[in-house]
Amino acid sequence: MPKKELEPFNNTMLRKRRNEDSILRKIASSFPPSRSRAARRFLALGIGDDAALLRPKPGHETILTCDWFLEGTHFLRDKHPPDSVGWKCLVRAVSDIAAMGGAPRCFLLSLALPETHTGRWLDLFLGGLRRASRKFGCALAGGDTTKRDEILINVAVMGEVRSGSALLRSAARPGDLLYVSGRLGEAELGLRIVRQSEGLASKNNLRIRKHLYPEPRLALGQWLVKKGLATALMDLSDGLSSDLSRLCAASAVGARLEKAKIPRIKAPQVAVKHGCDPMQLALHGGDDYELLFAVPSRKAKVIPKTFRGVRLTAIGSITRKRQLTLLEENGRASQLLPRGWDPFRRTQ
Amino acid sequence: MPKKELEPFNNTMLRKRRNEDSILRKIASSFPPSRSRAARRFLALGIGDDAALLRPKPGHETILTCDWFLEGTHFLRDKHPPDSVGWKCLVRAVSDIAAMGGAPRCFLLSLALPETHTGRWLDLFLGGLRRASRKFGCALAGGDTTKRDEILINVAVMGEVRSGSALLRSAARPGDLLYVSGRLGEAELGLRIVRQSEGLASKNNLRIRKHLYPEPRLALGQWLVKKGLATALMDLSDGLSSDLSRLCAASAVGARLEKAKIPRIKAPQVAVKHGCDPMQLALHGGDDYELLFAVPSRKAKVIPKTFRGVRLTAIGSITRKRQLTLLEENGRASQLLPRGWDPFRRTQ
Repeated sequence: MPKKELEPFNNTMLRKRRNEDSILRKIASSFPPSRSRAARRFLALGIGDDAALLRPKPGHETILTCDWFLEGTHFLRDKHPPDSVGWKCLVRAVSDIAAMGGAPRCFLLSLALPETHTGRWLDLFLGGLRRASRKFGCALAGGDTTKRDEILINVAVMGEVRSGSALLRSAARPGDLLYVSGRLGEAELGLRIVRQSEGLASKNNLRIRKHLYPEPRLALGQWLVKKGLATALMDLSDGLSSDLSRLCAASAVGARLEKAKIPRIKAPQVAVKHGCDPMQLALHGGDDYELLFAVPSRKAKVIPKTFRGVRLTAIGSITRKRQLTLLEENGRASQLLPRGWDPFRRTQ
Repeated sequence: MPKKELEPFNNTMLRKRRNEDSILRKIASSFPPSRSRAARRFLALGIGDDAALLRPKPGHETILTCDWFLEGTHFLRDKHPPDSVGWKCLVRAVSDIAAMGGAPRCFLLSLALPETHTGRWLDLFLGGLRRASRKFGCALAGGDTTKRDEILINVAVMGEVRSGSALLRSAARPGDLLYVSGRLGEAELGLRIVRQSEGLASKNNLRIRKHLYPEPRLALGQWLVKKGLATALMDLSDGLSSDLSRLCAASAVGARLEKAKIPRIKAPQVAVKHGCDPMQLALHGGDDYELLFAVPSRKAKVIPKTFRGVRLTAIGSITRKRQLTLLEENGRASQLLPRGWDPFRRTQ
């Protein structure tokens, strides 16, 4: 947790306005004890010591994941409301817990920010983070804070799942049906609208809601685990084409998708206005945090059309041949290449 | 783990040199299965899925901590060898595990770096990180990677300690004797030497060794827990004056230090040459990763002069009065103010 930095101590630096300890106290006091009994039981010692102490539940495994959320790379200071930045930095990592079929319990917040942002910006950021923390039963356990010109965030989340029951990417089998939750491409369209707009995005604009405030599909992941319905599960963060390609690589299989079945955004004219095609958004757009899962065909009849208001759609199937194929509406097949987001990809 | 970023997908971005998945593979292949049986048992599922799975040992609590390690703030690209950056980013967080009296088991690596640094720099960085990972029995469990102009690192470490036996900052009692391990101020002097030198620091310069390659005091922390010798324990990362002030605040006590007893650097002429006083370095210099602990006076006779080659020194005692007092060699007492490093402190 808090640690020495490069600047040597300065004998004249005695008077101060805000120091690291006071920012830590502000963060800590923003998170009263969790309302979630499971989170309180799990977190034996929270923020304030050298480290946090967790008391894992017997018969359960601990799930562990982390995610960057960096100004300029993942959000824009002048366009994304601080409340959304707080919400989303936690949701991104919580979605990985959903992708294992687990329940989140606590998180570490690493935050670097300019001193100008330790007042109102930080308050609003902590407001969004606190709402996500409460909603998903994920308590603040600790973290690290430092000063930096750019706002840098890293969130590590711990969750739990009954031992041996976590759903991995690596167990899809030829013949399984492939499902996705929700509609794909909405978050990508939201990103484009935000980028093309002037000033801070409005939280009330429904078209960008999924981009600003994604919802991790925790209940769905846990239900798939409990009912033993899926062979493989992951969340869609980089785009269907890239993430499905990873699921197939991990499972040593391929997949065939039916283009007509892929659930895409409802208002194609809005997409066209922003220069994009709903199908391309659905295939390659990222940030949706929907779940992608494989179900043995004999169990497919148990999968409902909607789960707690979220649509579930069979979009294709797992194949022995290790390739991604896209079946067009006219019956023609083409190869689907991973074209979701990759920070290191570039043209030559 | 890996997640969508701001740039919308680009239909022309088909050819590539290095992508995120290949960098992840490079990182994963740098860490063969841990030699530590405890780490292998703990880490049920490592890098490659949405999240890692841990199997905590019954009767134990999980320790959880994280730390930033940022270019410009914590290291300099043109002065700190990448091997040292890899070593130190893990040691900083492992030291928090030592500070609870626990044993490290696994870590998450969040890494953002320029594409120019995904070759040799990354190899050397991973080399240092791997050596630390092996030496401290702390296996790579996962992480997140992205592209960025500056090198940004965040490391989260999980460890274990027998339930109820972790040593906190908050249980020091008036009358306890205060001990530190090692010599204080060496790392701060090393930092000054590195900052004043031209080009990449030499790994063979003994004067900067503690700054480049600190050693977490794991065995000492575990021994204090096992023998039940300490009431309170923390690691010294920001400097004795700041960290002792935190221990005292957490325990609602004060402390009196005897200046003459504080173990400082051996070669005062080197310190003077670099414009600093050995006592000031020992009181306020950070980055030493030594342990500071409080021992009830009746147990003080059990504390040896050295533990596995590391000096242990009684430097003062805990007082009821909530103030830090420094006793000069001439018997005069003055108030000790926290003047270790604080990123948000500034003159007005």
